[in-house]
Amino acid sequence: MAAADPAAPAFALDERIAADSHPVESLTLCELRLMDDAQYPWLVLVPRIAGARELIDLDPALRVQLGAETDQAARLLRRLVAPDKLNVASLGNVVEQLHVHVVARFVADAAWPAPVWGRLPMQPYARDARDSMVSRLRALLDA
Amino acid sequence: MAAADPAAPAFALDERIAADSHPVESLTLCELRLMDDAQYPWLVLVPRIAGARELIDLDPALRVQLGAETDQAARLLRRLVAPDKLNVASLGNVVEQLHVHVVARFVADAAWPAPVWGRLPMQPYARDARDSMVSRLRALLDA
Repeated sequence: MAAADPAAPAFALDERIAADSHPVESLTLCELRLMDDAQYPWLVLVPRIAGARELIDLDPALRVQLGAETDQAARLLRRLVAPDKLNVASLGNVVEQLHVHVVARFVADAAWPAPVWGRLPMQPYARDARDSMVSRLRALLDA
Repeated sequence: MAAADPAAPAFALDERIAADSHPVESLTLCELRLMDDAQYPWLVLVPRIAGARELIDLDPALRVQLGAETDQAARLLRRLVAPDKLNVASLGNVVEQLHVHVVARFVADAAWPAPVWGRLPMQPYARDARDSMVSRLRALLDA
């Protein structure tokens, strides 16, 4: 990536994403975070690009990198929980900061077959369960 | 792409996707189709790969091509209707055949800010409106 432009605004994680998720890892382009909803193993990727909003507005190299990190997150969830289906989406109707959801879905989960967004109130993890989930994700990333 | 394997099953469009959408164009990898829901300008891309189900199961070159065609569809909708937001998603909880949704969203649309899937009954286009939409999409693709 080019050197940072001192005149450009700095990236800052959207405060709603920050409140609803926990850090897992800083990847090359994205912050990889675990959504704090114990109903579904659910990751969110946030490219560290100030002002980014739509996938198609990314520079081509960054667009490819975001695709690669999205796939990395999907493979991570598959290895972790072997879901029945992966849901991958860039919506941004509520939070404008560009972010990509990767959700592990099961035929028996609370919202199946509907998408997870706006369906049911989030059910935050118990502290131990969340820490365990984050640890397992990090261990798989480092493997 | 490699020559077709005569032992491999042939690609056939899922019958629910066929019933719910209209052909716009055959792109290099995907069938590009207009969803028959006049509430939102909504495209769907279906890679012509028999048995494909998850993005991460595609060969790397096909994965990149699908990303490029997804972005092409998003740019097409932006030029056509200048939406407030683009929604891009690969879900597949109901229809297993791999497909990618690209939906033009407006703050004033029927489901905003919720995602469109499973929210409201589809409202099929009147024949003239559908034909006009498909013609405008094709004209922009050829421009």
